[in-house]
Amino acid sequence: MFRKLILLLIIGLAFACKNETTKNENVEETTSLNVPTTYYTQYVNPFIGTSKMGHVFPGATAPFGMVQLSPQTNFEVMFEDGKYNTETYEYCAGYQYRDSTIIGFAHTNFSGTGHSDLGDLLIMPTTGDLVLDPLETPEGSKGFYSTFLHSSEEASPGYYKVDLDSYNIQAEMTASERVGFHQYTFPKSDNAHIILDMVYNIYHHDNKNVWTFIRVENDSLITGYRQTKGWARDKKVFFAMQFSKTFKSYGHKKYDEVIYDGFYRRFNQTENFPEMAGKDLRAYFNFDTEEGEKIQLKMALSNVSSAGALKNLEAEIPHWDFNKTYEETSDKWNKELSKIEVETLTEDDKTTFYTALYHTNLSPIIYEDVDGQYRGLDQNIYVSEDFTNYTIFSLWDTYRALHPLFNITQPQRNNDMIKSMLVHHDQSVHNMLPIWSHYANENWCMIGYHATSVIADAMVKNVGDFDKKHALETSVNTANVRYFDGLGDYIDNHYVPDEKSGSSVSITLEFAYDDWCIAQMAKQVGNTSIETEFLNRSEYYKNVYDPKIGFMRPKLSDGTFRKNFDPMDTHGQGFIEGNAWNYGLYVPQNIDEMVDIMGGKERFTQHLDSLFTMEIEDKYIEQHEDITRDGIIGNYVHGNEPGHHIPYLYNWTGHPEKTQARVRMIMDTMYGPTVEGLCGNDDAGQMSAWYIFSSLGFYPVTPGSPYYALGSPLVKEAKIHLENGNTLTITAKNQSKDNVFVQSVSVNGKLIEDHLLSHQDIMNGGELIFEMNSTPKKQ
Amino acid sequence: MFRKLILLLIIGLAFACKNETTKNENVEETTSLNVPTTYYTQYVNPFIGTSKMGHVFPGATAPFGMVQLSPQTNFEVMFEDGKYNTETYEYCAGYQYRDSTIIGFAHTNFSGTGHSDLGDLLIMPTTGDLVLDPLETPEGSKGFYSTFLHSSEEASPGYYKVDLDSYNIQAEMTASERVGFHQYTFPKSDNAHIILDMVYNIYHHDNKNVWTFIRVENDSLITGYRQTKGWARDKKVFFAMQFSKTFKSYGHKKYDEVIYDGFYRRFNQTENFPEMAGKDLRAYFNFDTEEGEKIQLKMALSNVSSAGALKNLEAEIPHWDFNKTYEETSDKWNKELSKIEVETLTEDDKTTFYTALYHTNLSPIIYEDVDGQYRGLDQNIYVSEDFTNYTIFSLWDTYRALHPLFNITQPQRNNDMIKSMLVHHDQSVHNMLPIWSHYANENWCMIGYHATSVIADAMVKNVGDFDKKHALETSVNTANVRYFDGLGDYIDNHYVPDEKSGSSVSITLEFAYDDWCIAQMAKQVGNTSIETEFLNRSEYYKNVYDPKIGFMRPKLSDGTFRKNFDPMDTHGQGFIEGNAWNYGLYVPQNIDEMVDIMGGKERFTQHLDSLFTMEIEDKYIEQHEDITRDGIIGNYVHGNEPGHHIPYLYNWTGHPEKTQARVRMIMDTMYGPTVEGLCGNDDAGQMSAWYIFSSLGFYPVTPGSPYYALGSPLVKEAKIHLENGNTLTITAKNQSKDNVFVQSVSVNGKLIEDHLLSHQDIMNGGELIFEMNSTPKKQ
Repeated sequence: MFRKLILLLIIGLAFACKNETTKNENVEETTSLNVPTTYYTQYVNPFIGTSKMGHVFPGATAPFGMVQLSPQTNFEVMFEDGKYNTETYEYCAGYQYRDSTIIGFAHTNFSGTGHSDLGDLLIMPTTGDLVLDPLETPEGSKGFYSTFLHSSEEASPGYYKVDLDSYNIQAEMTASERVGFHQYTFPKSDNAHIILDMVYNIYHHDNKNVWTFIRVENDSLITGYRQTKGWARDKKVFFAMQFSKTFKSYGHKKYDEVIYDGFYRRFNQTENFPEMAGKDLRAYFNFDTEEGEKIQLKMALSNVSSAGALKNLEAEIPHWDFNKTYEETSDKWNKELSKIEVETLTEDDKTTFYTALYHTNLSPIIYEDVDGQYRGLDQNIYVSEDFTNYTIFSLWDTYRALHPLFNITQPQRNNDMIKSMLVHHDQSVHNMLPIWSHYANENWCMIGYHATSVIADAMVKNVGDFDKKHALETSVNTANVRYFDGLGDYIDNHYVPDEKSGSSVSITLEFAYDDWCIAQMAKQVGNTSIETEFLNRSEYYKNVYDPKIGFMRPKLSDGTFRKNFDPMDTHGQGFIEGNAWNYGLYVPQNIDEMVDIMGGKERFTQHLDSLFTMEIEDKYIEQHEDITRDGIIGNYVHGNEPGHHIPYLYNWTGHPEKTQARVRMIMDTMYGPTVEGLCGNDDAGQMSAWYIFSSLGFYPVTPGSPYYALGSPLVKEAKIHLENGNTLTITAKNQSKDNVFVQSVSVNGKLIEDHLLSHQDIMNGGELIFEMNSTPKKQ
Repeated sequence: MFRKLILLLIIGLAFACKNETTKNENVEETTSLNVPTTYYTQYVNPFIGTSKMGHVFPGATAPFGMVQLSPQTNFEVMFEDGKYNTETYEYCAGYQYRDSTIIGFAHTNFSGTGHSDLGDLLIMPTTGDLVLDPLETPEGSKGFYSTFLHSSEEASPGYYKVDLDSYNIQAEMTASERVGFHQYTFPKSDNAHIILDMVYNIYHHDNKNVWTFIRVENDSLITGYRQTKGWARDKKVFFAMQFSKTFKSYGHKKYDEVIYDGFYRRFNQTENFPEMAGKDLRAYFNFDTEEGEKIQLKMALSNVSSAGALKNLEAEIPHWDFNKTYEETSDKWNKELSKIEVETLTEDDKTTFYTALYHTNLSPIIYEDVDGQYRGLDQNIYVSEDFTNYTIFSLWDTYRALHPLFNITQPQRNNDMIKSMLVHHDQSVHNMLPIWSHYANENWCMIGYHATSVIADAMVKNVGDFDKKHALETSVNTANVRYFDGLGDYIDNHYVPDEKSGSSVSITLEFAYDDWCIAQMAKQVGNTSIETEFLNRSEYYKNVYDPKIGFMRPKLSDGTFRKNFDPMDTHGQGFIEGNAWNYGLYVPQNIDEMVDIMGGKERFTQHLDSLFTMEIEDKYIEQHEDITRDGIIGNYVHGNEPGHHIPYLYNWTGHPEKTQARVRMIMDTMYGPTVEGLCGNDDAGQMSAWYIFSSLGFYPVTPGSPYYALGSPLVKEAKIHLENGNTLTITAKNQSKDNVFVQSVSVNGKLIEDHLLSHQDIMNGGELIFEMNSTPKKQ
């Protein structure tokens, strides 16, 4: 009861803050909206990271919303060589800041991923002669894309605006969890159109469609679905789309072969015929508009059925008040963002921080209808009885820091996410937890079975009420699927032989860590035999260490190490998206022993020093799309995940000051409040979660253990408002840009001696105090 | 209560009959089954009509079953020219009797249609080296098809057997409503296979797939689905397939492009990997078999989900007793067949009769899971609360005699079928009743909106408890969809102008009849204004009659008749699948007036005489696939539907004796107990329903009226056991092959003077007595 009161008090304070602050000079003017600017959302700039490698989007979404509605710009390249844009990697989120044309607004987008999919249900308003081709018509004239200027763009959590200059149309959008809300301000026209492009896809733009289906239910309501065979091989998105104004006519163009035309020879089904189906469809709806007339459009999604989408539409946005929806969504964002209140040295840092926090609240997404119905991995429909179902588990990335962050900021959601992973296992024909899953599909991207890490981390931190024994069972099942990615060989040989996999070392290291996580679960539920078995497996990392050269190295089935081996090369050397120098330091489950077998603290310190300072030849960079000069420091790659723990490893070599300096340097150089403010893929929030943790002065080097490695906080002060009602106040005394060295750390008056902060210390709330200085603490 | 007792008594008698008769010399030996041969099923020969144009199948099915499991032979042509068989029309039901090879057994088949689809989930057992191509391997060697001999085939209602000589495998199959039950007797082999071919389709064999999905749930259970874009543009068939024996290994071959191969480069997913997805898949399951070992396989279907299929499997066949399922299905058939007990002049006639009755119990099919869930026309899932949902409505064919027959033999099912049509309307984005619908899709085949006829016929005959007012509303909605097939022009011009449709006359005639049916409904529910409106519309047939030439004739928008016009030609003359000579006699709603405007009784009699006797030039036949010499008499086409009422029209010209002779002649020449026993497409039972009615001595010339036109019975005696508990006994006194002329007809002692039998007279039960003679009754 007492805790509840405190919680209410905190929420009250947060709302008070919000109401006090109506405007701030740092906020871009949102002239088109007459809503008060909230306190924390003002520090979010959704354009941060939208240039180059960040792969985030500037569009409108609610926290963890199924609808992530964002402009799609990825057709620029065509104009240069006259051909179709085949560059897909840069457009994982559909938007690149350098572009000057928009082809429409899509309702689903990944945030920060390094491979992609989605881009469902592209909407584009136009005027003038109807053009149904996005880029160029068959006759060679301009497609329906529009030019735009960044000066007309505005974005804040839950809101996006742009002027489509080619048509003199202002486009605004907001969203609830399951519904995108568009507002288009038209010029006077007797030839205005809203196009629903069902062909457009992100990544491999036009060849992923399996089937599309549209019904014009009445003069303002459209339903239907699209099925694609993209990264998710059997993905279905159902929709219900409602216009605020009845259209005067409509039609569609179909691009695929029609087998049965018995119907077509008698009727005209391309115009004003309310049923459309085919592999590839683009539909259009025609309007007369007055000068300045607003046409609104609500697009509800469902992964169950169009009936489900209609239900979602009616439940979430039963009105036409655009500002009301935006305000509600903005309030939801403020609630999430106000969970960590920070004071920083600069306003820029605050923007970077809150934008990072924003980016950690975009994935995974809610993946069920308002009534709890959702599509399972077997394509059957289920009802989530005691949880909210989520999807988009980019686990190779997010187990590292994002899910650990959720254990502090989003324990209830993380509990639901774990329950979602457990039902994924239960529905999986492989009896496996998710590897990289989205939209009721396993896409098998990357390696390891890191759902085990997420589960173990929650268990040791006492987060959630999921079934612990079942969680262990699902993990053990997963860890015994012999056909999965060398796992049978790993079980038999105690390492993955080089002949069996091009990523044999990376896989062996990560399996071993995941096995340690399973052992931690077993310990939690008191299953000693499983604990012993998996602790044993967690030692297998040693089998790919070659003490002769001091590197992890591919080993053949006969037990000998591979002869030709280049520890600098990221290709064909037994690692995936990394090399032996950086990826080879991945033994988070036993760092002391890793340091020991790698030659002890001094040698390991030298390895780390070299890693961060060595000059790297171009040939080692240019061959891999995930590694660019932007995201690297020496041979350390912050732009990708395998090394995210590395800056903290100095803590284990007796040189915590090197960790402190390095993490401050990384926060300073690899993040920032600009469109280039992410040095690599945000990867569903992992890159941002690294920043949040590091800003606060600690990092979960070993998820599955209840400890965080201490670093050097960037904030002057932070208040973490916990779901248990407690507040942890972090204070960096004597904080400055130069004072990156921590002299002492105390939690509630107790000095921390071992560079580890416990989760319980956080949960207890109170005071975490860092004493800062410009010189390292004397040993 | 009294009626109930009578009903029980009848059922008891039927079962008694069945049990008394265990064997009959006319029955083919079913040596492989130790089950008693039932009385009525013995007279059914499913091979009747499987040659040439009948388009029926010999496979196993329960009455109106969703699973209609039948051998597919349609690859013969390839061997002649070395190319793929492009002949599709002959293979609407997958089987042509002349063929000598089988490529497998498919679970869905239309019965008798003139266009096709389905052929889902082809199963083929083989031995020896695995071959996954049905016809020919890429290297040019033999595909997985097998030769067979008709001497090894057996078929009876609910059972089919054949020896697959290429593999020395005996194949047997039976079925419940939703589950196909296979039993394969193998030779000794360490290399036996059961192939699940998800590529095979009937009609346009290999290009209809949209998506296929397979999960190997465990070592004997497979689930999945297939989506096709065939005649039904968005058809989904889900399945659950269980083997009686665990397979030793499995795999698949995929024929389509894979976009994302990130997975494939690391795993082998083609063998022993339990998840398969793609446009085109063929899966195989490997077994070791002993000599004579039986491997059984149960394949359950669902149109909802694979979970639904599994539920159907468990509910309908929870065991492995093949004979038990066959016996249950055989009992169901006997129950249906025993509703009409006939005594005939010859055993051949009895076989023809019961096989025709069998063919009238194959379509429409039950289209819902055991729990009432079904897929609606909008692709959403519904639950049938107070009815059983049916699909396959070949209404242009079946409104004529099949649904009227159901009003006698299957009133409860016809009520359910009408309710299925009403929900079709409610789910239709067009607000239309079905035209030609199957598998939650409208395929728009043929013309008119004849669901109105089915509904009106049931209403005037007091069949069913469907909502009459809603039925009228759905009919009026349907009759006002202006974009449908010239309907707007019909409403505006009072006929369909020739410029607007190539079938303008046929459409005008049928719309006018359907409008009369709507007027009958309106009369039933007391809506005078609708009755008047649609009675008025029902007169529009007159607007396409050209009194100058005495034929129905295409009329232009300006009100003049088309100049170039050939009343013999079936192409481009305003008719569809017919010509002015035969199709032009279609005014069932007012035959007296038609006769009158066409020159009166004598001239009309001459027209009919000419129609049946004229010599027809080859050029008028060969151009149309639906008309062959087999099905025509002069210029009368019995092999197609538009003329089915014509032999009965003499009743309206004062020459009932000509009707009597003609219908006996048609029964004698157009039907028979052989594989060529259907002179044209059975069309979902319409052709057979014509035979049943005509055999009994009457025919529903005007569905929507409560009267039947009298003909000349073929039977010596028939007992119709009605659902109301009454029995109508039809007796043809002095019956013989030559005594085709009816001297008098009386019902319960009352002489019928006007050649019309009322439905009430049938429902009352009692005695319907025909006095037969070899010469016409004296006028």
